[in-house]
Amino acid sequence: MVPHLVTALTGPLLDLEEKILAATPAIERWFRLEWQEHTPPFYCSVDLRNAGYKLAPVDTNLFPGGFNHLASEMLPLSVQAAMAAIDKYCPDARNLLLIPEIHDRHPTYLDNVARLMQIFRQTGLHVRLGSLSPEITQPTPLALPDGNMLVIEPLVRSANGRRLGLKDFDPCTILVNNDLSAGIPDILQNIHEQSLLPPLHAGWALRRKSNHFTAYDEVVKKFGKLIGVDPWMLNPFHAKCGEVDFHSGEGLDCLASNVDAVLAKIRKKYKEYGIKDQKPFVIIKPDAGTYGKGIISIRDAAELKDLSAAQRDKMSVIKDGRVVSALNIQEGVPTFESIKDAVAEPVVYMIDRYVVGGYYRVHAERGVDQNLNAPGSQYVPLAFAQQHAVPDLRAKPGTAAPNRFYVYGVVARLALLAASLEMERTDPNPEVY
Amino acid sequence: MVPHLVTALTGPLLDLEEKILAATPAIERWFRLEWQEHTPPFYCSVDLRNAGYKLAPVDTNLFPGGFNHLASEMLPLSVQAAMAAIDKYCPDARNLLLIPEIHDRHPTYLDNVARLMQIFRQTGLHVRLGSLSPEITQPTPLALPDGNMLVIEPLVRSANGRRLGLKDFDPCTILVNNDLSAGIPDILQNIHEQSLLPPLHAGWALRRKSNHFTAYDEVVKKFGKLIGVDPWMLNPFHAKCGEVDFHSGEGLDCLASNVDAVLAKIRKKYKEYGIKDQKPFVIIKPDAGTYGKGIISIRDAAELKDLSAAQRDKMSVIKDGRVVSALNIQEGVPTFESIKDAVAEPVVYMIDRYVVGGYYRVHAERGVDQNLNAPGSQYVPLAFAQQHAVPDLRAKPGTAAPNRFYVYGVVARLALLAASLEMERTDPNPEVY
Repeated sequence: MVPHLVTALTGPLLDLEEKILAATPAIERWFRLEWQEHTPPFYCSVDLRNAGYKLAPVDTNLFPGGFNHLASEMLPLSVQAAMAAIDKYCPDARNLLLIPEIHDRHPTYLDNVARLMQIFRQTGLHVRLGSLSPEITQPTPLALPDGNMLVIEPLVRSANGRRLGLKDFDPCTILVNNDLSAGIPDILQNIHEQSLLPPLHAGWALRRKSNHFTAYDEVVKKFGKLIGVDPWMLNPFHAKCGEVDFHSGEGLDCLASNVDAVLAKIRKKYKEYGIKDQKPFVIIKPDAGTYGKGIISIRDAAELKDLSAAQRDKMSVIKDGRVVSALNIQEGVPTFESIKDAVAEPVVYMIDRYVVGGYYRVHAERGVDQNLNAPGSQYVPLAFAQQHAVPDLRAKPGTAAPNRFYVYGVVARLALLAASLEMERTDPNPEVY
Repeated sequence: MVPHLVTALTGPLLDLEEKILAATPAIERWFRLEWQEHTPPFYCSVDLRNAGYKLAPVDTNLFPGGFNHLASEMLPLSVQAAMAAIDKYCPDARNLLLIPEIHDRHPTYLDNVARLMQIFRQTGLHVRLGSLSPEITQPTPLALPDGNMLVIEPLVRSANGRRLGLKDFDPCTILVNNDLSAGIPDILQNIHEQSLLPPLHAGWALRRKSNHFTAYDEVVKKFGKLIGVDPWMLNPFHAKCGEVDFHSGEGLDCLASNVDAVLAKIRKKYKEYGIKDQKPFVIIKPDAGTYGKGIISIRDAAELKDLSAAQRDKMSVIKDGRVVSALNIQEGVPTFESIKDAVAEPVVYMIDRYVVGGYYRVHAERGVDQNLNAPGSQYVPLAFAQQHAVPDLRAKPGTAAPNRFYVYGVVARLALLAASLEMERTDPNPEVY
């Protein structure tokens, strides 16, 4: 189940929310049974867009940052979930090695690292930081915004080459918080005796969004049947183009025709559901990569021809110098939530199969149809509802507000389950069970 | 791990607290490994007494009431732990049947039942109440103090006699919140297809405190070795007399000699540790039974001869008419905690292997050496610490207060582990693994 947090929405429950809340027992049982068959990612954050008529995940992050943006009273939930996760992978663990991003591009990223260390220390593990950067050759202090210090150390392979650790620190679990956009470093290869989490193929060096979307299609189809809703209500249309080069123009035809096709499908759905106040749009994003870079919103395939040089450049370079090749065309889901007039999208955090908190990503200078994961975004932690997580559908009417955050937790867990299927199917060394 | 709650204690850490806090990683790993070998009780509450020089569990309740006394912001922790527990016993569960006490002797007991229902509803189960009382022959409303209603229904065995449920309600899990002091009702016998939790031999019809104490001796011996403390710091001395009848005088000799022996052992320890401000005392309590009845404090075996008729009566009748026979003599542990001048003892709640909250039981009219589980006791929920559960032993000195509640959570989990061993060893139908 999901904690009861205050969402930005007020007013009567939307149809979709009502259906999901009413089906809670069936939904929870379904998840329980799915988790008997599939292993959830170690941790995960999911960006959601709530358009009112539909609520969909738009990004499923397997190396979540931003734990520092969760309300601090949620920490015990994270710790308890982390205990369950550690128990599964490494019950006799003493040590956990955390490998963060190399570049602290985000001023608050180190706060996220500190928060993760805190969570795992609270589970009773010794936690230390190892760096993938060749520049870190000795223990190096990193100043946190609050004046405290972290220490990051060089990674060391054991004498026999089979294990990874730090000097005098042999971890059972290696938790990666670096999305490996720059490729898989040699030092992370061929680790067989320790739990390397998430697995290497979760990193953007190998991961492809299109695999996730395909797994999500399947998950949401089953779920739609379970609760009797059109899966589209929970799933953006999507398509993919294999090779696109904005500078040479290669692949732009594929892109234009797919943009047209997705827009046409959206238009049809809008008509079916009488949605008149929205104009269909698509988001084009690289099949590999993250950080909100290389993402544009398009309302018409014709716009592709008129992209400025700057926009073309933006689409051609993403993180750590990887050049965009394959692109996804994803139905744009406007957000109809706002906090103090700034558009907002909920982000839900999970450890193992448990929802442990969330926040709103808010961007005052962006529109309802734009990517909010961009410089200038702010974070509003979701607090526990005043009545403290005690919604009770069978309570006397009026005594318990419905848990709207529950609905977010369900959709985020659908994406979590999709990531689980995606990881199974893309595992280069699948275990035979 | 354990949430960070505000305890009544302030001032410097006591030796024992310091040792336990310093050994956190070793302790958590030890618990993880123990739980690989042993199954924790479904739920459990443990009464602790903190004397400063020692901290010990004095009652391990396998049918805990009082969930309503936990701070409401702790609910999500209970729900998450309950999810983990349900997952283990009955992943495909739709329905949970809760069997409460027959007699709502405690005015707030129904609030506890309502809270338990809420926790399990939040895990996504349908929850209904079944009564062991022959007087409940049809669905019967029960008014809660807040004006809401519960409905309790007659239990029904399935047509083939193999399952227990209610009319049109077939549960996968049957959760008993009735300690079965009055014996095991026929209707609970021979249930093999469903998870009956806790098992019947956890009820006072079969359970004996002495078995628990013996298992606890063993647990705390291992634990004392792990962290390098005298197990006595965590364990009251105890002894047992088989048959005692206060009216006929049968067995009083055994009682007197054991009281003397335990008092002598305490005196020796007090001398060893230079404890001068305490006068040794023992608590005499029935080997079976609960509810704080039939419990007396004794400072000298001679007092046994001078018991008043009322005291003799008190020792001869406990809950649901069971007459005391076997008695335990337990080292009295004074409590040195108080809230607004009233003596207080912490009570820690666990679901599965997770600590989910606690409160102080406070009794303004009782002394530091008396049983507080008595009419007139009050309950002070433990709130999250101001800094919200973020103690970090490696943080800059002064920035993070130590989690004193952690120490309570450790000792409570030692009792939980002892209960687990106790249940394994007293299982009348042990499974062969």
